[in-house]
Amino acid sequence: MSAVPVPDLPDQLAIERLRRAHELSREAVVRTPILTARSLSAAHGGPLALKAENLQRTGSFKLRGALNKLRSSESPAGVVAGSAGNHAQSLAYAARTFGVPCEVYMPVDASVGKMAAVRAFGAEVHAEGESVDECVELARARAAEAGYLFVHPFDDLDVIAGQAGVGLEILADRPQLGTVVVPIGGGGLISGVAAAIRQARPEVPIVGVQAERCSPFPESVSSGTAVSAASVATIADGIAIKRPGAVTLPLVEVLVDEIVTVSESAIAEAMALLLERSKLVVEGAGAASLAAVLSDQVALDPDRDNVVVLSGGNVDIGLLATIAAREEVVEGRRLRLFTKVSDRPGGLARLLTTVADAKANLITVEHVRESAALDVRETGVALNLETRGPEHAEEVRATLAAAGYEVTDV
Amino acid sequence: MSAVPVPDLPDQLAIERLRRAHELSREAVVRTPILTARSLSAAHGGPLALKAENLQRTGSFKLRGALNKLRSSESPAGVVAGSAGNHAQSLAYAARTFGVPCEVYMPVDASVGKMAAVRAFGAEVHAEGESVDECVELARARAAEAGYLFVHPFDDLDVIAGQAGVGLEILADRPQLGTVVVPIGGGGLISGVAAAIRQARPEVPIVGVQAERCSPFPESVSSGTAVSAASVATIADGIAIKRPGAVTLPLVEVLVDEIVTVSESAIAEAMALLLERSKLVVEGAGAASLAAVLSDQVALDPDRDNVVVLSGGNVDIGLLATIAAREEVVEGRRLRLFTKVSDRPGGLARLLTTVADAKANLITVEHVRESAALDVRETGVALNLETRGPEHAEEVRATLAAAGYEVTDV
Repeated sequence: MSAVPVPDLPDQLAIERLRRAHELSREAVVRTPILTARSLSAAHGGPLALKAENLQRTGSFKLRGALNKLRSSESPAGVVAGSAGNHAQSLAYAARTFGVPCEVYMPVDASVGKMAAVRAFGAEVHAEGESVDECVELARARAAEAGYLFVHPFDDLDVIAGQAGVGLEILADRPQLGTVVVPIGGGGLISGVAAAIRQARPEVPIVGVQAERCSPFPESVSSGTAVSAASVATIADGIAIKRPGAVTLPLVEVLVDEIVTVSESAIAEAMALLLERSKLVVEGAGAASLAAVLSDQVALDPDRDNVVVLSGGNVDIGLLATIAAREEVVEGRRLRLFTKVSDRPGGLARLLTTVADAKANLITVEHVRESAALDVRETGVALNLETRGPEHAEEVRATLAAAGYEVTDV
Repeated sequence: MSAVPVPDLPDQLAIERLRRAHELSREAVVRTPILTARSLSAAHGGPLALKAENLQRTGSFKLRGALNKLRSSESPAGVVAGSAGNHAQSLAYAARTFGVPCEVYMPVDASVGKMAAVRAFGAEVHAEGESVDECVELARARAAEAGYLFVHPFDDLDVIAGQAGVGLEILADRPQLGTVVVPIGGGGLISGVAAAIRQARPEVPIVGVQAERCSPFPESVSSGTAVSAASVATIADGIAIKRPGAVTLPLVEVLVDEIVTVSESAIAEAMALLLERSKLVVEGAGAASLAAVLSDQVALDPDRDNVVVLSGGNVDIGLLATIAAREEVVEGRRLRLFTKVSDRPGGLARLLTTVADAKANLITVEHVRESAALDVRETGVALNLETRGPEHAEEVRATLAAAGYEVTDV
């Protein structure tokens, strides 16, 4: 992967064309804010700013590419795509903007919320395929049959040119630009962002981030040919693309300086931190970039504004609940204990009074009568408590021990 | 409450002074974005925009007032306050900015996270009082003893003049301004916002919102004298102020057009909607303003930009988990069922296979052997399932019924 000299790029990605496309998108696209993340900056080597593309209309950057594709096409009779999420919503929104019919094939087990969002933008949803790949094939067949324009989520120069708007806004808003960190799924976002930044500021380092569990890019780039990754579930489902695109792989090869991968727990931790500190809901794919910084895999410029792109915010509310609850455990504010009480009347009541005295908040209690580990006159109790933090948790343990309870962590 | 003629205001709130204070705050304060909320606009009568003050440094608007107070004071030897949360963090941050020592009295049961945030800004935390009121008294005593400046969270014209910056930014960013909706706790934020907007645009309606459970303002305004509310816990703890201030009450009387109150469930619903649709973490107090709009208590201008102020985003991660989990139930994506299985081996396994066939995700299962409602050879089973929405939940019920299970909702 090369850096400073600006590589030859396809005409669609010439900087003047990117600028014009961005100018034309102003009406429909939000110029998303870049937010300073001061509390994170000190610990990781340089000033950090977050390009909050989760605040984009439809909840992700994908809208930019879909709009540019429609604008670049000669009034298609209709558009069609196969997608489980962000691309579907974006294309539906873009099609409505241009008054073009839109059909989307979504996997039968796609979230009802996402299907409803696509329908709300006026598109027709076919809940038909078992997988996204199958939906893409169904969409291609439908396009051929109906004479509609098939819109690929990333492997398309007009789509990539639209995503470049993220890069142009970063350039305009942070002239003292350090390293730029971008999540990689199919490679459309980073290709667009890097195309814009490389042409304007060839010296700016651009780092791509994939989820460890689905990361075909590092090997594909080093071998120079697209390699397929195994399909494994990841919290960053939005970037779980098994194979780099024919268009995006060569662009990533010449435009991106380095690609790193991040673990599931690093992504979850980044999502939780964004909720707690930055007050932003960011999906796993969108938080992967910050996860790379937090796990100290990215060299930040100590004197310039390093920008992390948060690519989207479409998270199911159930997953959000899980992430938040997990963070409570990580921060030592959930305490899961096992202890024993006498099976005489009042045994459990006395225990719970002691818990209350320790000012812990009872979430659940389970009373276990029958177990080989218990004496005949004993009952086991599993407590799930909320505390004010690790120190308070330690106080709760000590209070229970002082009251004569033998306590073990579950 | 009067509207159009601009009332006489104290000198500190004259528009030129507010503008100058805002200008001086630029370095330390974030000009928070105003985000368009398209999907919410149609349903509630007019274009809606969100002033995202949850993205302010320290997580709330309070920083503006604290900074202005310090700037307006003649180099105090130190500053001191009593607070459980946002005011404490803001004052600590502001004091560090000015290089002034800061002490904060916080209730002993204040969140460890908030205490840590205050300490991280370099302030000394005294975890001493049982309530915020007691902490305020301790802070006043400490100020008198040490010769420090006591900083009140809202009942202070310099603090109010700082909060006015929110109003000035709204005026600048939304020239076609409709109704402005602002949460009310002590009344500092709305006094500042309304002072700025009334002087520049006397015709703009300003609506204040209190949490139903702690809402002394409506009665205080109508009786013309501060009335104390009963102290009841509310999810909007940041605005649970029992009594209007001596400075703020007369300002609210002359500057605010209407005050409405919102229920706990309306606030929780607004918080969930902000998470899901707007990708923003907003605390209960901060979401009260949107809750008033969602419960159709605010007349929005159909042709102008109505602005809802989201005053802060400091929510404990545990509460966030609860809000998100609650929303899953509200949206019909959690299904709690009770049914019976045979107590023969394999009875529960067969039920769970049926659940899996219906593509519902099992969260918890409880096996109840002993109950008067059960026959001797029956076992009760309580299922907690995740579904893709109300329609899928209905399908799950139907699948279980078709397999011979009698199912009741819990």
